[in-house]
Amino acid sequence: MSRETLALVMAAIAALNYRPNRAAQQLKTGHNPILGLLVPSIANPMYGYIAREIETVAQQTYGHRVMLGNTYRSKEIETGFFDDLLSHGVRGVIMISSQLDEQHVDQGVQRGLVAVSYDRPATPGASPSVDHVTVDNAAAARMATEHLIERGHRRLAFVTAAGQTMSRRAKVKGFLAAAKAAGLTDSAQMVEASMQAGYGDSEMADLGRMLAARIAADPRRPTGIIAVNDLMAFGLMAGFRDAGLSVPADVSVVGIDGLFLSALMNPGLTTVRLPVPQMARKLVERVIGRMADPSLQPEEFIFQPDLVERDSVAAPPQPARRHA
Amino acid sequence: MSRETLALVMAAIAALNYRPNRAAQQLKTGHNPILGLLVPSIANPMYGYIAREIETVAQQTYGHRVMLGNTYRSKEIETGFFDDLLSHGVRGVIMISSQLDEQHVDQGVQRGLVAVSYDRPATPGASPSVDHVTVDNAAAARMATEHLIERGHRRLAFVTAAGQTMSRRAKVKGFLAAAKAAGLTDSAQMVEASMQAGYGDSEMADLGRMLAARIAADPRRPTGIIAVNDLMAFGLMAGFRDAGLSVPADVSVVGIDGLFLSALMNPGLTTVRLPVPQMARKLVERVIGRMADPSLQPEEFIFQPDLVERDSVAAPPQPARRHA
Repeated sequence: MSRETLALVMAAIAALNYRPNRAAQQLKTGHNPILGLLVPSIANPMYGYIAREIETVAQQTYGHRVMLGNTYRSKEIETGFFDDLLSHGVRGVIMISSQLDEQHVDQGVQRGLVAVSYDRPATPGASPSVDHVTVDNAAAARMATEHLIERGHRRLAFVTAAGQTMSRRAKVKGFLAAAKAAGLTDSAQMVEASMQAGYGDSEMADLGRMLAARIAADPRRPTGIIAVNDLMAFGLMAGFRDAGLSVPADVSVVGIDGLFLSALMNPGLTTVRLPVPQMARKLVERVIGRMADPSLQPEEFIFQPDLVERDSVAAPPQPARRHA
Repeated sequence: MSRETLALVMAAIAALNYRPNRAAQQLKTGHNPILGLLVPSIANPMYGYIAREIETVAQQTYGHRVMLGNTYRSKEIETGFFDDLLSHGVRGVIMISSQLDEQHVDQGVQRGLVAVSYDRPATPGASPSVDHVTVDNAAAARMATEHLIERGHRRLAFVTAAGQTMSRRAKVKGFLAAAKAAGLTDSAQMVEASMQAGYGDSEMADLGRMLAARIAADPRRPTGIIAVNDLMAFGLMAGFRDAGLSVPADVSVVGIDGLFLSALMNPGLTTVRLPVPQMARKLVERVIGRMADPSLQPEEFIFQPDLVERDSVAAPPQPARRHA
């Protein structure tokens, strides 16, 4: 094309307000510059934070748009989303799911999806069909538990929602390992209950509030509490307040996630912080990289968290001395 | 098609794992069953909440997927998103923007977009090219202000980020109207500052924390504070705590939004709650309805908020009586 012709074409593009027809491009290339993004609920501030990072990297670094779906942790909704992605010519998908069973994901991959999974490790022994990007959840819970033990706590509890996800399972493992290493297996307990309503926004915190009432009513209650995530910790702190217990004078609480909101709690929540921007970048990089180069094999990427100390942890209360 | 042929076709569809090719459908119909959704930042819990409701209604009620974009309140990013929507054959867009100037939106509409705008009313006098769905922001601020006045507060402040958006402007108007109606114009003040970093997640709360320090240092400080939104209120409460002031004993705080997180604050935040699920349904209904029926004219839909009383408001402190 001569320089003159090019100038004419550019002028015509400007005059006609021309835009490339992605549908026609897609028929030619077989895929759209769009990534699917599945989250349990975008109303959960942790998923909102990850989604913001993912969308920004996908768009600013790779020129990809993001198609968002809330799954409410339903395998049927996830499968329906895969169907729609494929029918829209979208091949890359980032799944924030942590479901124990990845079979429906394998089916999506067989149908042409390139998938990256967040917040769960690869299934041991299986040859993975997707990348796994996750924080070391066992280390996160271990770090929280060791922090309480260092501050003198002996009666410990890990508080979680009932129902297994890979991340919850790993956290429980880390909690129990830290308790065992300190010789506290007999005084380390699990406290859990099912969420009443479906998974949405406030349910995790509501559950924490309810479980705090249960813990407060126990005369031999734990003094050091590890919450499965920050939202659970927010609910626990509100519930202890409802029950007339002071955090951290009567009971210490540690969260996991490192939401910016944890700094706004009263007291400020000590929490194990996940490296969200780094993980988001890796998620996007992998899914786009493997679409571009099908010879790349799925891998596992495990990130390390760090502890952010605030004001929700203190030494355990001294037992009341009678007849002193 | 005979019943037998239909049965054969259905069997073939099942056997081949057939899915309709949306790209081919789109070339035929001219649009994709996808809605664009622009938010300032999905990491902001209020936008995460609205986005969750919008995506769920769009998908479950109308079979539409959602393409998400974070705009960081930048007009350039919004315009780039419009370009991409059009090139992907997406015609419907929901904008959570509240920018004063809608000119770039009008240009999008001229190029074929069907747009619905959240959180701002139509520009008076102009013939709107888009629907407007919003809470009555002036009423929300008036309601918060009147609540403080009823509890005996005379020195009032409205705390906001500097820089005008339509919703902030309406809230300031409502605040000033309520103060004037109670004869308190002289003791009602605005407190504001620019956000240091760009618009993301924690910046609004960080600003609140900083402005609380400024307010606390004023010997004639206001006793009743209306925050432009709940995140600002969270930051203010943390900042008053930093400064050794007690909420509500020394200073009362009212938020606007009604985030579920406001119930988890200590003290629980009194806030004016927006009817988010109803507004989200209307946003989706309008954009899809107007794509289906181009004869529908853009309209304005204004929703009413309600006050949720918690523990962040009390009577103002009595002035210390010396020599009593």
